[in-house]
Amino acid sequence: MTDQQRPPLRLGIAGLGTVGGGVVAIVQQHGALLAARAGCRIEITAITARNRSRDRGVDLSSYAWEDDPVALARREDVDVLIEVMGGEDGPAKAAVEAAIAGGKHVVTANKAMMAIHGQSMAEGAEAAGVALRYEAGVAGGIPIVKALGEGLAANIITRVMGVMNGTCNYILTQMEKTGADYADVLEDAKRLGYAEADPSFDVGGIDAAHKLALLASLGFGTKVDFQGVVIEGIERITLADIRHAADMGFRIKLLGVAQMTDMGLEQRMQPCLVPAHTPIGQLDGVMNAVVIEGDQVGQIFLQGPGAGAGPTASAIMADVIDIARGLTGPAMGLPAAQLVAAPRAGDASSAEFYLRLLLKDAPGVLAKVASALGEEGVSIRQMRQYDHDGEAAPLLIVTHSATRSAIDGAMGRIGAMEYSLEAPVALRIEHV
Amino acid sequence: MTDQQRPPLRLGIAGLGTVGGGVVAIVQQHGALLAARAGCRIEITAITARNRSRDRGVDLSSYAWEDDPVALARREDVDVLIEVMGGEDGPAKAAVEAAIAGGKHVVTANKAMMAIHGQSMAEGAEAAGVALRYEAGVAGGIPIVKALGEGLAANIITRVMGVMNGTCNYILTQMEKTGADYADVLEDAKRLGYAEADPSFDVGGIDAAHKLALLASLGFGTKVDFQGVVIEGIERITLADIRHAADMGFRIKLLGVAQMTDMGLEQRMQPCLVPAHTPIGQLDGVMNAVVIEGDQVGQIFLQGPGAGAGPTASAIMADVIDIARGLTGPAMGLPAAQLVAAPRAGDASSAEFYLRLLLKDAPGVLAKVASALGEEGVSIRQMRQYDHDGEAAPLLIVTHSATRSAIDGAMGRIGAMEYSLEAPVALRIEHV
Repeated sequence: MTDQQRPPLRLGIAGLGTVGGGVVAIVQQHGALLAARAGCRIEITAITARNRSRDRGVDLSSYAWEDDPVALARREDVDVLIEVMGGEDGPAKAAVEAAIAGGKHVVTANKAMMAIHGQSMAEGAEAAGVALRYEAGVAGGIPIVKALGEGLAANIITRVMGVMNGTCNYILTQMEKTGADYADVLEDAKRLGYAEADPSFDVGGIDAAHKLALLASLGFGTKVDFQGVVIEGIERITLADIRHAADMGFRIKLLGVAQMTDMGLEQRMQPCLVPAHTPIGQLDGVMNAVVIEGDQVGQIFLQGPGAGAGPTASAIMADVIDIARGLTGPAMGLPAAQLVAAPRAGDASSAEFYLRLLLKDAPGVLAKVASALGEEGVSIRQMRQYDHDGEAAPLLIVTHSATRSAIDGAMGRIGAMEYSLEAPVALRIEHV
Repeated sequence: MTDQQRPPLRLGIAGLGTVGGGVVAIVQQHGALLAARAGCRIEITAITARNRSRDRGVDLSSYAWEDDPVALARREDVDVLIEVMGGEDGPAKAAVEAAIAGGKHVVTANKAMMAIHGQSMAEGAEAAGVALRYEAGVAGGIPIVKALGEGLAANIITRVMGVMNGTCNYILTQMEKTGADYADVLEDAKRLGYAEADPSFDVGGIDAAHKLALLASLGFGTKVDFQGVVIEGIERITLADIRHAADMGFRIKLLGVAQMTDMGLEQRMQPCLVPAHTPIGQLDGVMNAVVIEGDQVGQIFLQGPGAGAGPTASAIMADVIDIARGLTGPAMGLPAAQLVAAPRAGDASSAEFYLRLLLKDAPGVLAKVASALGEEGVSIRQMRQYDHDGEAAPLLIVTHSATRSAIDGAMGRIGAMEYSLEAPVALRIEHV
């Protein structure tokens, strides 16, 4: 059938914030392009949002209004629910479940919801024979769900890595560039709209961990397991860490890594030192990047904007076009019943670590630190003591490869010493 | 249906070189993975190659042998023809046309064939209701056809750029790294297997231009128009050019650029100066990279291996999995009848240019060069004369933005001067 003959694909949009507004704009502006690429017209029939009266700068007068997202999801004139409200539970979840139960496709940007409820929603969508797609939820405009779940589907995936929170990458980049402290840059980021008033989801690594959990499921054929992600935020990273890392040829990134190990699925979202000359080491500002390693393909690197109305709407409409083209297969690339509940490996794999200690400048302290490391089986590859004023001496150590538990053991011993003036910091070095 | 219930998807492989061998290996080794992701078993039923007796290191004994690729394409037990023989005409084209005529899907790595015959083959595949896919033909393992044709399908694409010939990028990178001349590095590349005995398709830019023509069609909704690509190879790039470019903060890449202009579709594959600090400027060795710019998404960057058995087989099998999943839509993202024959803009858009002249060191020569440029409307932004021995003085100029025809006019005037000791070289500066 030509696109004139096929019935239109009708969207119900739940949420009219930045992303929802972007979706409305793209449908209004790119009607002919979308119809040509989808093979049928794409129409918005109904909308819902918390506040009906707010001026959103787009003409919404031709769309039916619903106060209740669930009612929107159930409308007979909606074929696809576009869920861009956010929130892992509450109205978003209720609307998505209602849509699936009613045999409607779902396209969502809601990584929190998918990271927590992805498995049950994937099962529901499969049972109902509808698509459940979330490209916009992971790394914004980068078509990474597609690249991993389709483009590299013939590979045994060996590692997935990503810098997937633009707020964190902006803060770390700005600290390095301006020499300002974490707290000052965070305030700037709030003023510029790059960080929320409550930034804990971003700087605490939770937002990025949601995304990593989805990529891990796609890449390794496992049930989405957000609770299995080891999460550390960037709050303790100091300007000194950034400078010292740079001296050694590294940059600090909030890096997500997922890999299958002998002990199970390792998923971690942590500040890491990465080699400065690599594409991921070079990533500046609010950009996102993902590295995928597969047994056939080797290493693929993708970079692009991780947020914003345009990039997110681009991803949402790509999912809509795919649905129009008939791509309504399983959400995680495999039938939900085949997804494996992998054992959680925590962040058990060995690595070199960067350690930052603040010690009282007294005779014998270095020896005590060295022996604490030695007793846990951690050997020192590189040690630097920088100039300091007063009696607090900063000490930096790069270890040879060690397990996280050995490092934690050594950090515990050192932190308990009377000479230790602040809790020691250990950052993994990831060779990307 | 589960994958146990669905009939297998049966492949006929035409060509058993590096790529064909890679496809056989992946099907033999990843059977369960492919079945799970495709939703049905993937089987090889028949094969063909020029030489039946060669040992290819894989067990081919369970596959039917055909001497004739067309006969292979017509077999009743073949659902998908995998065409990895190469060559724009001849057996490859005959086999693909026979497959399409017989209602079989086609997956090919053959960019030359697709660049020349893509439009007619896309029309044929559409009429027959079969898929025609060529992910492996463009930038090897990078899922760029998918990213552009599906992942960014909701965008008006504004520019597509790529470094898509690993041989050229290897040569340019090695020249810079080792200080060796073009000819020496080319010989090394041949010894290492990075360059063919007759390297003219690679170093002449033709291979990369085939790929660019396909991306341009996908991105801009135009008929594949390889003849419309302005092509220049890297043969005239000297070590001095690379060094001088580096002095000014640039690196030289064989860069493909496609963009829609007021004058029509601009497609060019040329050595260009690109800013050294950008991801594409940093690309080393045999890697490929593609930049896509869209009105919604902004800029996306993808990098990965452009050749080799594993990466190419990864791309081919992704296409096969897509076909198993039912993704059998038009080859160029739009119905072939909707693809536009865009006017050819050549490389008409304005840019800054890098000019390299070799002039007789005599009074008044500089003034003559400057006035030749001025008469064509080209103004000088930066000029450098390096130390030199003897009477041949190398002169480097960076111009302000100028049209190609103005630059060509000036180069013609300067080249015709008695003081000009070699044909002047003009390289476009592309801001990526």
